[in-house]
Amino acid sequence: MSDDRRIHLFDSTLRDGAQTQGVDFTVSDKTAIAEALDRLGVSYIEGGWPGANPTDDAFFAEPPELKAASLVAFGMTRRPGRSAENDPGLSGLVNAKAPVACIVGKTWDFHVDLALEISHEENLAMIADSIAQLGRSKREVMFDAEHFFDGFKANKAFALACLRAASEAGAAWLVLCDTNGGTLPDDVRAIVAEVRETLPEVRIGIHAHDDTGNAVANSLAAVAAGARQIQGTLNGLGERCGNANLISLVGSLALKTTWDCGIDAERLRLLTPTSRLLDERLNRTPTRGAPYVGESAFAHKGGLHVSAVAKDPRTYEHVPPETVGNRRHVVVSDQAGRANVLTRLQEVGVEVDPKDPKVGRLIEEVKRREYEGYAYDGAEASFELMARRLLDQVPDYFSLNRFRVMDDRRWNARGELVTESEATVTLTIGSDQLMTVANGNGPVDALDKAVRKALIPRYPVLERVRLLDYKVRILTPQDGTEAVTRVMIESGVDRERWTTVGVSPNIIDASFNALYDALSWKLHNAGVEAPKG
Amino acid sequence: MSDDRRIHLFDSTLRDGAQTQGVDFTVSDKTAIAEALDRLGVSYIEGGWPGANPTDDAFFAEPPELKAASLVAFGMTRRPGRSAENDPGLSGLVNAKAPVACIVGKTWDFHVDLALEISHEENLAMIADSIAQLGRSKREVMFDAEHFFDGFKANKAFALACLRAASEAGAAWLVLCDTNGGTLPDDVRAIVAEVRETLPEVRIGIHAHDDTGNAVANSLAAVAAGARQIQGTLNGLGERCGNANLISLVGSLALKTTWDCGIDAERLRLLTPTSRLLDERLNRTPTRGAPYVGESAFAHKGGLHVSAVAKDPRTYEHVPPETVGNRRHVVVSDQAGRANVLTRLQEVGVEVDPKDPKVGRLIEEVKRREYEGYAYDGAEASFELMARRLLDQVPDYFSLNRFRVMDDRRWNARGELVTESEATVTLTIGSDQLMTVANGNGPVDALDKAVRKALIPRYPVLERVRLLDYKVRILTPQDGTEAVTRVMIESGVDRERWTTVGVSPNIIDASFNALYDALSWKLHNAGVEAPKG
Repeated sequence: MSDDRRIHLFDSTLRDGAQTQGVDFTVSDKTAIAEALDRLGVSYIEGGWPGANPTDDAFFAEPPELKAASLVAFGMTRRPGRSAENDPGLSGLVNAKAPVACIVGKTWDFHVDLALEISHEENLAMIADSIAQLGRSKREVMFDAEHFFDGFKANKAFALACLRAASEAGAAWLVLCDTNGGTLPDDVRAIVAEVRETLPEVRIGIHAHDDTGNAVANSLAAVAAGARQIQGTLNGLGERCGNANLISLVGSLALKTTWDCGIDAERLRLLTPTSRLLDERLNRTPTRGAPYVGESAFAHKGGLHVSAVAKDPRTYEHVPPETVGNRRHVVVSDQAGRANVLTRLQEVGVEVDPKDPKVGRLIEEVKRREYEGYAYDGAEASFELMARRLLDQVPDYFSLNRFRVMDDRRWNARGELVTESEATVTLTIGSDQLMTVANGNGPVDALDKAVRKALIPRYPVLERVRLLDYKVRILTPQDGTEAVTRVMIESGVDRERWTTVGVSPNIIDASFNALYDALSWKLHNAGVEAPKG
Repeated sequence: MSDDRRIHLFDSTLRDGAQTQGVDFTVSDKTAIAEALDRLGVSYIEGGWPGANPTDDAFFAEPPELKAASLVAFGMTRRPGRSAENDPGLSGLVNAKAPVACIVGKTWDFHVDLALEISHEENLAMIADSIAQLGRSKREVMFDAEHFFDGFKANKAFALACLRAASEAGAAWLVLCDTNGGTLPDDVRAIVAEVRETLPEVRIGIHAHDDTGNAVANSLAAVAAGARQIQGTLNGLGERCGNANLISLVGSLALKTTWDCGIDAERLRLLTPTSRLLDERLNRTPTRGAPYVGESAFAHKGGLHVSAVAKDPRTYEHVPPETVGNRRHVVVSDQAGRANVLTRLQEVGVEVDPKDPKVGRLIEEVKRREYEGYAYDGAEASFELMARRLLDQVPDYFSLNRFRVMDDRRWNARGELVTESEATVTLTIGSDQLMTVANGNGPVDALDKAVRKALIPRYPVLERVRLLDYKVRILTPQDGTEAVTRVMIESGVDRERWTTVGVSPNIIDASFNALYDALSWKLHNAGVEAPKG
């Protein structure tokens, strides 16, 4: 495809997305998300704002190694009345381990007059100085033109002068930001077209917010008018109503336009898993109705739709769900459920003859468990184990007779309030009964330690297995007494990772179930022999 | 305003919105929502499909009395090879107590050939006959042109012939449906413009779905090209990814365009309450980031934003929140600045002199705690308590001496594996020491019950407080081995809701901390007096 059709995707999940109410990324969240974005194939990954908070400093001190994408550090133009060389914010950007910098500056005279209270000339100098200063150490410098659309409407000459200052100082991209998110698509298109005409030599980007529900359409309108970079976030994360949803944009750009957004058919199948990864990291329930990737995006209720879809899915599906890594959801069709389960079994490497009568039982079991609150999406190890148990492909490596967990919070002799957790377990391995006890950093940690203390002498392969992440969600919280707790545990050893799930009204019980699967999966995966007895 | 600028809003929440997975309206839900839509000022309210289910039959047997809006009954064209007079579906429509009928028919030849397996001529006759038949009893008949955009692209002549048949039979409106939701705004605009040119005498409507995240933009594009009716749903309810969100459309049409959608400034203030009413009826959590009406739609997190908004809200707000019945919200976060914290204090009702040296300590405390893993956005009650404690404005209503929680999983006498949780707490209230014990559905439930058992005799206001939601997240700081658990608890009584947070390496400890805040906040909020002791 010709270079003229190339659209560069710029992901701001880790910077602008971090502004979302209730979102708090850890450094390891940031690393995992950046790696997923790199695999997906975006051009730029904005990692954060060096100097703004300890998390972003830690991230930029030891950034992930990206294969194709360029890491971007965000900042703002120098302060008024200070030299760019001595501006601490810009120094933070220069020192951040990122080849690209993106800085935001004012382009709406109202803000210059009211918020900054400086002259228009000083604002232009702040833009030019800052970009020139960063240009000495960075491969590329981008200029985020804050409030550009509002600024253009209020004082076109000044808004364009800001762009010109950035461009002449060496900015590789001028990104037009609809910061307050209030601009409608036709205005975005007309303004981008006019910028393009006035400054034909610059490369233009678009940064849209969803305050009118048009962030995706505004991005597409800007591209139609000449923009070649789209800034957005995974799942439309972002403050207020969110940023342009890159997930939706990728789906449409790749499947419905002749633009080349750098994501081929193979990478496009990562769209749904990438979207889900973000939700998992943030412990958020994925939006069922999300375009392309939502669980309901290709759901068909019974009746006329289902029979038409059975004849040809194009009757009621705008794109094939598997192209974006999603799947069809047919609520009442047994046949569809069967195909679904068979596909998932194949995915986790379980070989089974489709005609095996056990497949029917397996489908019933999956349905029953999902109704109870199990979620096998993201807990493939538990799904694989459940299938293999029903197909008699995995033994019971151990079984639980009893556990007791005690948490005790009290004042110690030194006048400090301390909490201790202690777990006692009684397990059977083959014909042996074992009883162990351990202390832990909380009840689940104590339980994990006690169980492994019993198992390790018999199964040394478990010695180095670690509990890496632990997530809890309460299902049907509106139903007080019937609430069910779902626990997901991520385990790992070296670079291997697997996730298991446990469900119970009792959180400790649910945790034990997930733990039981985590250890059993490792034993099966390592080819450990079943115990005799 | 001239009639040429009039856009008619057609709400389909009660019909197409009822297709949403997990949505089940009762008759009284339907009545309440129809009345709210009437107050808001839409032109048409589609109440359902008479004959499709008992709820819709009951609704149309005794429909609500609408002041301004017209009630619409939905149905489909007559069956193939049957007369319109003898078609039971059409008879149901004729008998329904609604002055307007809207019927759907095929306009994509692919569906006529593959799904219906009838001739193109018969399809045209089905459209014409059905509309003519309904025209005899209804004030207005509308034609929903199913899959019109896909049909137009596949076989333009046939798609237009379907519209012509409907128009000639007397349809008052031809509604172009993007049934599969896959059409992008530029295509919608071009196709609507071409229809308008071909059939200049007809009145055109648009019915968009959100499968690419462009339903709102597609509706606006259709209006720009000549459509004068918009079909959509409250909050974008609807199957798969939902329908065009009428709430977002009303906000933009009323505040940002010269179109007259029939909703004046006074009614516009009903936008947020109307959106919330739907969620309440459906027992759904409102979407925080919903354009115009979401709780976060006018939330400000960054420090710089907050100080600019304090000078003039237009700096970071695209419309004044009160125009749509919403309100501003200032959030405390990692990026907490002084202005942020002061505004937030004001918002939670804590009065403090900005020059008070305690404010500096408070900001440091927020930063320190957020670095530890506390997250105060979304846990305003804990934020308020922390501030009031530092400012000596809240007493210790009770203090913990000790708790012990025991979880025991074992085989019972009937051969079942059961788990029991029991908590013992020792508390001090004033000069009294109390010891209580309780069983629970898990350790946190047991702890909650034991604590409240001790407190309720002294503080009866806690009797009806309920633990509504419980969320757990493990935070793993990059450097240390010590993982930290963050627990958020949502509590409630009647319609009051508050959220608190607790952090500790031990999940039970973190839960107790969140619980302690939840109960203390309620006691402070209810104006309960401090204990003597």
